[in-house]
Amino acid sequence: MTLRLRAQWVLPITGPPIGNGEVVVEAGRIAAVRPAPPAVPDARDLGNAILMPGLVNAHTHLDYTVMRGALEDRPFFAWVRALVACKTVLDPEDWLASATFGAAEAVAGGITTVGDCTDSGAALHAAIALGLSGVIYQEVFGIDESRTVDAIMTELRGKVERMQSDATGTALTIGISPHAPYTVRPALFRALADYARGAQLPLCIHAAESRAEQELLQAGAGPIARMFARRGIAWQAPGVSTIAYLDAQGVLGPHTLLVHGVQVTEADRALWRERGAAWAHCPKSNAKLGNGVAPLTLLAGRDDPTDCPRVGLGSDSVASNNTMDLFEEMRVAVLLQRAVQQDVGALTAREIVEMATLGGARALGMDAQAGSLEPGKRADLCAVCPGALHGVPVYDPYSTLVYTARASDVMLTMIGGEIRYDATRGNRIEDRFPHLDLRPIRRRLDVAARKIRARYPFDTEVTS
Amino acid sequence: MTLRLRAQWVLPITGPPIGNGEVVVEAGRIAAVRPAPPAVPDARDLGNAILMPGLVNAHTHLDYTVMRGALEDRPFFAWVRALVACKTVLDPEDWLASATFGAAEAVAGGITTVGDCTDSGAALHAAIALGLSGVIYQEVFGIDESRTVDAIMTELRGKVERMQSDATGTALTIGISPHAPYTVRPALFRALADYARGAQLPLCIHAAESRAEQELLQAGAGPIARMFARRGIAWQAPGVSTIAYLDAQGVLGPHTLLVHGVQVTEADRALWRERGAAWAHCPKSNAKLGNGVAPLTLLAGRDDPTDCPRVGLGSDSVASNNTMDLFEEMRVAVLLQRAVQQDVGALTAREIVEMATLGGARALGMDAQAGSLEPGKRADLCAVCPGALHGVPVYDPYSTLVYTARASDVMLTMIGGEIRYDATRGNRIEDRFPHLDLRPIRRRLDVAARKIRARYPFDTEVTS
Repeated sequence: MTLRLRAQWVLPITGPPIGNGEVVVEAGRIAAVRPAPPAVPDARDLGNAILMPGLVNAHTHLDYTVMRGALEDRPFFAWVRALVACKTVLDPEDWLASATFGAAEAVAGGITTVGDCTDSGAALHAAIALGLSGVIYQEVFGIDESRTVDAIMTELRGKVERMQSDATGTALTIGISPHAPYTVRPALFRALADYARGAQLPLCIHAAESRAEQELLQAGAGPIARMFARRGIAWQAPGVSTIAYLDAQGVLGPHTLLVHGVQVTEADRALWRERGAAWAHCPKSNAKLGNGVAPLTLLAGRDDPTDCPRVGLGSDSVASNNTMDLFEEMRVAVLLQRAVQQDVGALTAREIVEMATLGGARALGMDAQAGSLEPGKRADLCAVCPGALHGVPVYDPYSTLVYTARASDVMLTMIGGEIRYDATRGNRIEDRFPHLDLRPIRRRLDVAARKIRARYPFDTEVTS
Repeated sequence: MTLRLRAQWVLPITGPPIGNGEVVVEAGRIAAVRPAPPAVPDARDLGNAILMPGLVNAHTHLDYTVMRGALEDRPFFAWVRALVACKTVLDPEDWLASATFGAAEAVAGGITTVGDCTDSGAALHAAIALGLSGVIYQEVFGIDESRTVDAIMTELRGKVERMQSDATGTALTIGISPHAPYTVRPALFRALADYARGAQLPLCIHAAESRAEQELLQAGAGPIARMFARRGIAWQAPGVSTIAYLDAQGVLGPHTLLVHGVQVTEADRALWRERGAAWAHCPKSNAKLGNGVAPLTLLAGRDDPTDCPRVGLGSDSVASNNTMDLFEEMRVAVLLQRAVQQDVGALTAREIVEMATLGGARALGMDAQAGSLEPGKRADLCAVCPGALHGVPVYDPYSTLVYTARASDVMLTMIGGEIRYDATRGNRIEDRFPHLDLRPIRRRLDVAARKIRARYPFDTEVTS
């Protein structure tokens, strides 16, 4: 079965835009990308639209969708603690509704591939329900000695095996995520590194995100160290950077995705490049939590023409962002880099679109399948209709995408050849997902939000 | 005639949010703001919405709407020159369509009041067509001696008198805008200061926007000085800051609105405070053009509790932004301040909503009429419906407005008691403006855009 999609602009990413282009889809894969030949009856003409690869959200936590807006105005570590407190009030049904609603937001915003870190495991089932491709990383925590490394590892192996079984036949891979240097102790990191190597599991780690983390690792000081002291958690500051510390634990390699990278140096860069690790850049989350702006020139190695940057763009969870809108994420990424570097050349529209598509696919190790419109790749696509007011006129589709588009301008999302979101199906959001009934999910989300409101504002002393 | 608007949240700005609130409108003014009494037949219940004062866009150029996306990736002064080149291809009918389309974008995005700088004069007619309130500043240029100060002033007086006549019976005031220190010579600044004082005209000046401007004033160096030298323009660098320079020209006073303020110091602050001048903060434009981040703590004087900040939020023109979406402008303002200051307390949702409403009204000298929901003020309102995906759940309406809302979430805009935009009138944008036929405007905008495309990419050597 052949499907032909036509649009005023087709953006292959790996080549220049094609005016009045066509993408031919056969058996879930891209068969051709080309100027549209004369109309044939079975073509779907999207008209005034930009047809492009599905967006790759290289870092998110679909689980936390219900916490959107619940954790405002807290310094980084106080925010982490509020989030942890918030998690205790939710049950598995709440988590599933929260993650599924988040997956719906992703697909409605043109995202076809995710790198998701999940504690509850709900994100896997949410991603399956929406047909998403990507990597689902099972999170692991364990900074104190309340559970042995063996106990944690035994539980983790069981979870991963069940997840791999559940993901059979999908375009989802299961990975593991040692959460961060301040939530995973050295012995656990090393056990996880061994497990990942042996079972060929991709890794994802929050790294070099905040000054609080940096103070803890460099000097054993700051708000995280104070919490450790209060809770009697043994901590010997390694006195090195996060990247050097993670390398010493054996968790840096070509299948490792590092997230954030705000506090990194040239020396760190040499290390992660040698190990072949990739990055997810989360500009809105970093800014909103007061962590700063990641040095993208360092992460993406833009000064070195031999680089093939494995840097993707991530929304992070909506508990910090507060939306999963990769168009706005691209826009803010450019604005932050240009503002901080005081240089209009710091980041261009084309570069950030590549990061949000092919860069993310590379970071997740999926660029043979996703991230560009090329024959043989999976048919993961989205079509963006320039806004009737904010998207007029169009001089350059890249400018329109980065500087004007909103997630709500997406008119069509296709994953693996299957239409998963279609704005032309109806004006109500519930009518637009061919395979999903959003109503019961929304109802359960409201139940979960009420539980959070009842506990609000949580047990969160503000410590900066 | 009485109109009652009800909504799940009413945000008066000058007081805490009211759950299930009501705003009573009588004869174009606000008669009451209160918890909703039991339903009465003539009330319009907006349901799941946030009803708030209309947004105040303290700085824009409606004229330049057609240039959205036409001038990308140029350093500040190269961008200015490309914009000037672009202007030469447009005729009055193009300008009117461009400005009117921009005014429609404003009103559809909840903006009811503007501070607009216009060269062509079209913005005044656009603002009248959409019913906008605010200040329309006629721009003045004249850095070289090709026209005498007398000739410029005679022409300006004629324009201002015609504009005042055209604005009779509207909520629009006419002002004048000496464009910037690098486009207006000292003798012209002084003549404009005299005229403004005598005729009681508010002033608006682009000030302290770029390093190029700073280099020109401090040292007679940089790209602007080089252009002056090429064109034989006499320039004696005053060797002082922009603020000190403008003060020496006599243009700082309580009716002066300064725009940008990226390159300012504590000493500058003492000066503009003594003169009583106000600011428009344009964070997205400043970032995108590589100018940097304005020190909002300095502009708004947040360290001084006796301050009543006269700082508004501005989109600047869509030739640099590229949208007029004050919700996103609020969001990016917070993200930039938090990122640069590495402090989550740098700017909160409540503070930025106040800046985008009451702060802007104060900056434009209109706070007796606009900027908050208070009995006696003009009924300038907007209602925002939290997004069906991105706006769920709502824990705090301020968080929802700043961190999730988009201009396209606006469901209703009322100006002076008149409904000027109503999303419930239809799904097509053309059906939503009760007093405006958008179709011929859009058609003319397309004509104007074709003229720009034909000249693209203009005569713009890239000089940083």
